[in-house]
Amino acid sequence: MAGPLDGVRVLDLSAVVVGPICTHVLCEHGAEVIKIEGPPSGDLLRSLAGKGRSPGMNGKFLNFNRGKRSLGIDLKKPAGIAALQRLAATVDVFVTNIRPDAQARLGVDAASLRAMAPKLIHCSITGFGSDGPYAGRPAYDTVIQGVSGVAGAFEASTGEPRYVPFLVADHTVGLVAAQMIGFALYRREKTGMGEAIEVPMFENMAAYIMQEHLGAASFRPPLGPAGDHRVLSPDGKPLPTKDGFICVSANTDAQAHGFFDAIGRPELKTDPRFARVAQRVQHTKEYFHIRATSLGGRTTAEWLEIFDQADVPASPYNTIGSLIDDPHLRAVGMVREEEHPTEGATWAIGAPNRFSGGVAPPRPPAPRLGADGAAVLAEAGLTADEIDVLRQDGVLIEGMS
Amino acid sequence: MAGPLDGVRVLDLSAVVVGPICTHVLCEHGAEVIKIEGPPSGDLLRSLAGKGRSPGMNGKFLNFNRGKRSLGIDLKKPAGIAALQRLAATVDVFVTNIRPDAQARLGVDAASLRAMAPKLIHCSITGFGSDGPYAGRPAYDTVIQGVSGVAGAFEASTGEPRYVPFLVADHTVGLVAAQMIGFALYRREKTGMGEAIEVPMFENMAAYIMQEHLGAASFRPPLGPAGDHRVLSPDGKPLPTKDGFICVSANTDAQAHGFFDAIGRPELKTDPRFARVAQRVQHTKEYFHIRATSLGGRTTAEWLEIFDQADVPASPYNTIGSLIDDPHLRAVGMVREEEHPTEGATWAIGAPNRFSGGVAPPRPPAPRLGADGAAVLAEAGLTADEIDVLRQDGVLIEGMS
Repeated sequence: MAGPLDGVRVLDLSAVVVGPICTHVLCEHGAEVIKIEGPPSGDLLRSLAGKGRSPGMNGKFLNFNRGKRSLGIDLKKPAGIAALQRLAATVDVFVTNIRPDAQARLGVDAASLRAMAPKLIHCSITGFGSDGPYAGRPAYDTVIQGVSGVAGAFEASTGEPRYVPFLVADHTVGLVAAQMIGFALYRREKTGMGEAIEVPMFENMAAYIMQEHLGAASFRPPLGPAGDHRVLSPDGKPLPTKDGFICVSANTDAQAHGFFDAIGRPELKTDPRFARVAQRVQHTKEYFHIRATSLGGRTTAEWLEIFDQADVPASPYNTIGSLIDDPHLRAVGMVREEEHPTEGATWAIGAPNRFSGGVAPPRPPAPRLGADGAAVLAEAGLTADEIDVLRQDGVLIEGMS
Repeated sequence: MAGPLDGVRVLDLSAVVVGPICTHVLCEHGAEVIKIEGPPSGDLLRSLAGKGRSPGMNGKFLNFNRGKRSLGIDLKKPAGIAALQRLAATVDVFVTNIRPDAQARLGVDAASLRAMAPKLIHCSITGFGSDGPYAGRPAYDTVIQGVSGVAGAFEASTGEPRYVPFLVADHTVGLVAAQMIGFALYRREKTGMGEAIEVPMFENMAAYIMQEHLGAASFRPPLGPAGDHRVLSPDGKPLPTKDGFICVSANTDAQAHGFFDAIGRPELKTDPRFARVAQRVQHTKEYFHIRATSLGGRTTAEWLEIFDQADVPASPYNTIGSLIDDPHLRAVGMVREEEHPTEGATWAIGAPNRFSGGVAPPRPPAPRLGADGAAVLAEAGLTADEIDVLRQDGVLIEGMS
């Protein structure tokens, strides 16, 4: 079976995470993605993210670049830019997270490429929208976390500003960019027209935090301070059991009452602080305290069985290392053994979503730098002689240096 | 101008956050969204999320439900289910986050609705995929954060498992669901076929964390423990200045050297611990410590100007409350004053992304419970007499009770 984006061709001039997660999603759903990398060492993520069996092939790079083809090309040389532009005229989608001034310098901004390929969908992921005072500023994930209120949510919760220990801005905005490209592909089918899309990280993450936490400050004048105090509770943690942790949430009356019965405190079901949703919202701190201090007498497995019977939402706690052993993830194919053609035995992460009309077959592993360059250029119409010249002139990059 | 999803009609049987953020995105890009709510008080988020000027109209509800139409209908009554099914046959997309067994009981599962409307795109957001051992279990955001390694990333960073103080699982998976619907709309334009999509929260969030943090444990046998130590650094925080905080990230050599010059320590540019990317990755702890302890002598505004000159990525720090005053967000229309027809003066959050082919005009404010019920049913072909009967029988809900 084919994926929903089967037949869509994507040229990807992006690096690190925000762009690569976008094109990863497109690829996972059937698109062909050609990743452009420059010398001498390609995508910065090849160098920035820890151990692999060979240089530039660490686990994080492998996981964000599954299924892509790599074209290594020197964009500091005019022949490299010319090849890139020729390739861009043959694809459906162009994705980049390089800054707008650099796009213009390389001739890969929306205006330049759409002049050559009017049906192209051009997606530019920026730090800050081009129509505001922060336009053109450089950005990384943590800069965006700090300016968009992500770190501010920690201050509101624990008193100390802090970044989330994963790339929540890069990851979220990469997903949004793939979403925007899906919407643009839909419109192009209806209208035949290409598109220039701008996806600014700051605006997307600020909207995210404001939707969640503007709260009583959504009104003018404010009805109270910003922040959803239930979600900001400093007690928002997995709960300790006899042998580890468990994750429990009991929001409806039926769930909360089931929880009170399970912990042997049925009197709380009629306690005016805890009987109904509105009362528990008023007494979040006490309610969360009861949840946090009631589970030390049994193991996680014992509690999971009890909560399952009582229809109280609960799950085991996973560390970042225990996920590969989770029985559900194994059963559904989210974690499977794979043999990488050059890197040996690895774990492959599967595609999470199911489509009745077909999902793409599992994508092949991530490429070495420049592994597909000659093939990609040949498909774009370059002759063997033209490709040889690019190789001899050091424009075509076929390996780390 | 019209948005990319102009003309798409969506029926939304979802509540709280994961479903509503999905349909919010569809709505923001031009789709018409009809939100189904049950008696007596509609979407649980109307009750769960703090202060408003009237019951059920708190800020969080308003921000996740902008632009939607509300149909209040009692699905415990057969006439309510019949009306819902009649409506489902007139739309392009059906979104739900109720559990699969409840979908089947109401006759709104994919098989039932697609039998009546073969071109329908049916999207079911679940806690856990239906083909694994956790299938059918109830889930809330924090349960998913705990089982998917989100809380585990905190343990790996600070030693203590903790939830992110916003609904990262709900929000992310809601965005993914909208993405999947976009891909399905694209495929339907090409093939004419409808689709059943399943979007499981656990699988999506586990993939997210594994992509980021499986790292050296992506290899068999593992080359090291899971986790990207740069991102897990407990020093990953906004940096204190003379008068507050600033957010700075300096990853390339040029940026790091610019930072060292700016803080008056040019000798670090040639220090073998800090001169090059690979060296700084090896000495992350010391490098982050220098960043954290060097900025106390000047104000945030002074440092922003210095880093701007040096092309070092930096931004001001925003609290969750200060976002509405951010000059960039104001300038680009992400925060604007709005008069809600029943709730009075509020702040409206804008749409973050730009499309050359047109973005949808700003969407109207969120509806009161059942505000659009009679109109929606009339458009679906119900006669005035049929609607009156539903009203008299208490099936049609037109207000909180």
